[in-house]
Amino acid sequence: MFKELKEKVFEANLKLVEYNLVVLTWGNVSAISEDGKYVVIKPSGVDYSKMTADMMVVTDMEGNVVEGNLNPSSDLATHLEIYRNYPEVKSVVHTHSRWATAFAQSECGIPCYGTTHADNFYGEIPCTRHLTAEEIENEYELNTGKVIVETFNSLGIDPLSVPAVLVRKHGPFAWGVTPQKAVESALVLEECAYMAYIGKTLTNNGIEPAPQALQDKHYFRKHGANAYYGQK
Amino acid sequence: MFKELKEKVFEANLKLVEYNLVVLTWGNVSAISEDGKYVVIKPSGVDYSKMTADMMVVTDMEGNVVEGNLNPSSDLATHLEIYRNYPEVKSVVHTHSRWATAFAQSECGIPCYGTTHADNFYGEIPCTRHLTAEEIENEYELNTGKVIVETFNSLGIDPLSVPAVLVRKHGPFAWGVTPQKAVESALVLEECAYMAYIGKTLTNNGIEPAPQALQDKHYFRKHGANAYYGQK
Amino acid sequence: MFKELKEKVFEANLKLVEYNLVVLTWGNVSAISEDGKYVVIKPSGVDYSKMTADMMVVTDMEGNVVEGNLNPSSDLATHLEIYRNYPEVKSVVHTHSRWATAFAQSECGIPCYGTTHADNFYGEIPCTRHLTAEEIENEYELNTGKVIVETFNSLGIDPLSVPAVLVRKHGPFAWGVTPQKAVESALVLEECAYMAYIGKTLTNNGIEPAPQALQDKHYFRKHGANAYYGQK
Amino acid sequence: MFKELKEKVFEANLKLVEYNLVVLTWGNVSAISEDGKYVVIKPSGVDYSKMTADMMVVTDMEGNVVEGNLNPSSDLATHLEIYRNYPEVKSVVHTHSRWATAFAQSECGIPCYGTTHADNFYGEIPCTRHLTAEEIENEYELNTGKVIVETFNSLGIDPLSVPAVLVRKHGPFAWGVTPQKAVESALVLEECAYMAYIGKTLTNNGIEPAPQALQDKHYFRKHGANAYYGQK
Repeated sequence: MFKELKEKVFEANLKLVEYNLVVLTWGNVSAISEDGKYVVIKPSGVDYSKMTADMMVVTDMEGNVVEGNLNPSSDLATHLEIYRNYPEVKSVVHTHSRWATAFAQSECGIPCYGTTHADNFYGEIPCTRHLTAEEIENEYELNTGKVIVETFNSLGIDPLSVPAVLVRKHGPFAWGVTPQKAVESALVLEECAYMAYIGKTLTNNGIEPAPQALQDKHYFRKHGANAYYGQK
Repeated sequence: MFKELKEKVFEANLKLVEYNLVVLTWGNVSAISEDGKYVVIKPSGVDYSKMTADMMVVTDMEGNVVEGNLNPSSDLATHLEIYRNYPEVKSVVHTHSRWATAFAQSECGIPCYGTTHADNFYGEIPCTRHLTAEEIENEYELNTGKVIVETFNSLGIDPLSVPAVLVRKHGPFAWGVTPQKAVESALVLEECAYMAYIGKTLTNNGIEPAPQALQDKHYFRKHGANAYYGQK
Repeated sequence: MFKELKEKVFEANLKLVEYNLVVLTWGNVSAISEDGKYVVIKPSGVDYSKMTADMMVVTDMEGNVVEGNLNPSSDLATHLEIYRNYPEVKSVVHTHSRWATAFAQSECGIPCYGTTHADNFYGEIPCTRHLTAEEIENEYELNTGKVIVETFNSLGIDPLSVPAVLVRKHGPFAWGVTPQKAVESALVLEECAYMAYIGKTLTNNGIEPAPQALQDKHYFRKHGANAYYGQK
Repeated sequence: MFKELKEKVFEANLKLVEYNLVVLTWGNVSAISEDGKYVVIKPSGVDYSKMTADMMVVTDMEGNVVEGNLNPSSDLATHLEIYRNYPEVKSVVHTHSRWATAFAQSECGIPCYGTTHADNFYGEIPCTRHLTAEEIENEYELNTGKVIVETFNSLGIDPLSVPAVLVRKHGPFAWGVTPQKAVESALVLEECAYMAYIGKTLTNNGIEPAPQALQDKHYFRKHGANAYYGQK
């Protein structure tokens, strides 16, 4: 089942390698089926160079494997929690990409310092709170999903307007309406994190966010009803 | 029309990828026709790996598409404003290259710290002022061009002597007398920005500009009537 | 003898190049035979592009060459000292990889700042003490091995839980239960060092280690009896 | 004439590209003939991808072209001055490699912070004084060579023990006993500069040079009568 979706998830996983967002077997991409009942996800700990579309694992929304011989990514429960809360999200990506992860380890969100960020994220990319010891010890991966949702809900952020988050002391999750878009969110996040680092160290932390009018202009020329970037 | 110029603009756009100055569909190169009446520019939001020379869009100097089925780059109006003011500029490039963009986001120009810079740019690469909210909300791309021209005119800089600018909170524009030269300006700008960052952080911001005599020597051994670098 | 082990050691040496952990002829990988009586190691100063599996040198545990026409790596005595003290270590890698070496030159260990580190190393990657002038002048490579062992023993660290060390003012050694695992330790060490640098400079050295519960969770979901990462 | 030497100089120039030490047409390698009467050097401003061994230019020790249709590198006079003063130097390389150039622009030498440096350079890589305006305006390239020689002579440094220099506000020159060795000096210099930057920024400039005994050990295990690194 889901032959076409498996192919897209597989190709998006390979994009993580092409975009230099992962090393070894790190990282994973999933997507949810159109009916919202199944998730296709990368198998856990498999070498990217030996992976095939057939190896993608299909689970139900409780994480039970319904097709495939391999274990799903150990981060599956985090992906599921995002899908359950945000039906508009159709694909989720997790990486330990260098610059975004370093911001997560530094416990800093990434403010919008310019139009590269504003073209893709409407406002700061937030960093979650710490998980408690209890949240870590029991159902850790589920609780990682819960703290992501808590962060977006408490800040009132629309997840498609800011399609990425930094999990504190861990690394980024990103998402989108297709596997390709989710991987692009992960890539642009990494680039924005890198540029934010340069700006913060160059100015001794004096760098300022972009003016709101500029953020609005760039975000809305690419997104929403009045967008005029790209082709019809 | 402009088959040869389209080919050159197309190839210069691909150089942006080869030189690692862009990711995804970011960046664009244009060139003006010899008679100064038409501009050839990259289409908006098209994947570089699927682009062909045929897809380049031809517009008149008011930005009306006169040939091509695709939308021109959304930054077209900025390019046109530069061409209208500086007839000596024959090609314009826009990127979000990492280091130059980070300087733009940090609201810093790039002083001439050494001969790498002086070989290519005669003096500091300036950063524009902020656009006002009004300038952003109405005719944003045109106003981006206007603030570039204002910056060069108010500082009395010859645009061919300093063929690049940082647009504040946005990123670099660069230019030249051919598409290849314009892309080279964008590449050298990126390298100079990277080296300037290293010097500023290494010296706790104590780095000094190169002595004027050294700047003069390097700039004029490569440019102008007495140049002696390269071949005849 | 040891045709298969030579092949594995050879391939692991080539991985150092593929993973960008070495330049020129720097770096070396060795492995110990199953009976613990022989070591297979890269020859000294041979170009990676001209190396073959046949060129790997076999020595006994006192460092006498028992097979091969080339000199073994000049770091052989360090490798042997690690094998003699830690029979659970089956392969050792030495590189001058950029970020790990820069930490060694800065005389800093690498604390566990997040889950990327905790997935692979259970606690701080230590930096050895200085060797004395006497230890440098006589049997330097042996004494390098001794100071590694001293560091792990005095801190009570299990070498398979923290499969890497920084030798002060020199660079990293890493290890594992196979040549591939040893090279992966060297690669992950490099990535953790890079991220640690970013975090330390981003926070003006204010970055904190990851909470112990998080370190425990990530380390033990990949290692030991209750691991659930990867495939069976 | 000098067919074989031209081939070696040509290949060494291509190594600059392979080792990522140059962009565009920057950089140049030369070598001196065995009889010390002629120099073979890269032509000025030629694209590396279009260069052939035939294009290498032969000059005498006063810089007169004795073979070749192209202009020699504009830095020829600097190369010649080094050869005239140091007959043991057989090949000279000039680049604007990023990290070494940034140190030159920051007016800092590169102290020996660890064994990577000590394996290749015996002590600090010095930075020259500023040239005077007069020295810049007349015979600039010759005076660049003179200030390199002055630096080494006044500090009493043997140029083969420290086969590189930073020309203040300009960039590195490196050298060796063959074109390949000269290019390797330029590569290792770049790596040492990068690592020195990391250490200086990581420690808030508190990083210390390696102990002298360690510098001695590493330098002399690879160089001189008692070297034991590599093959016979």
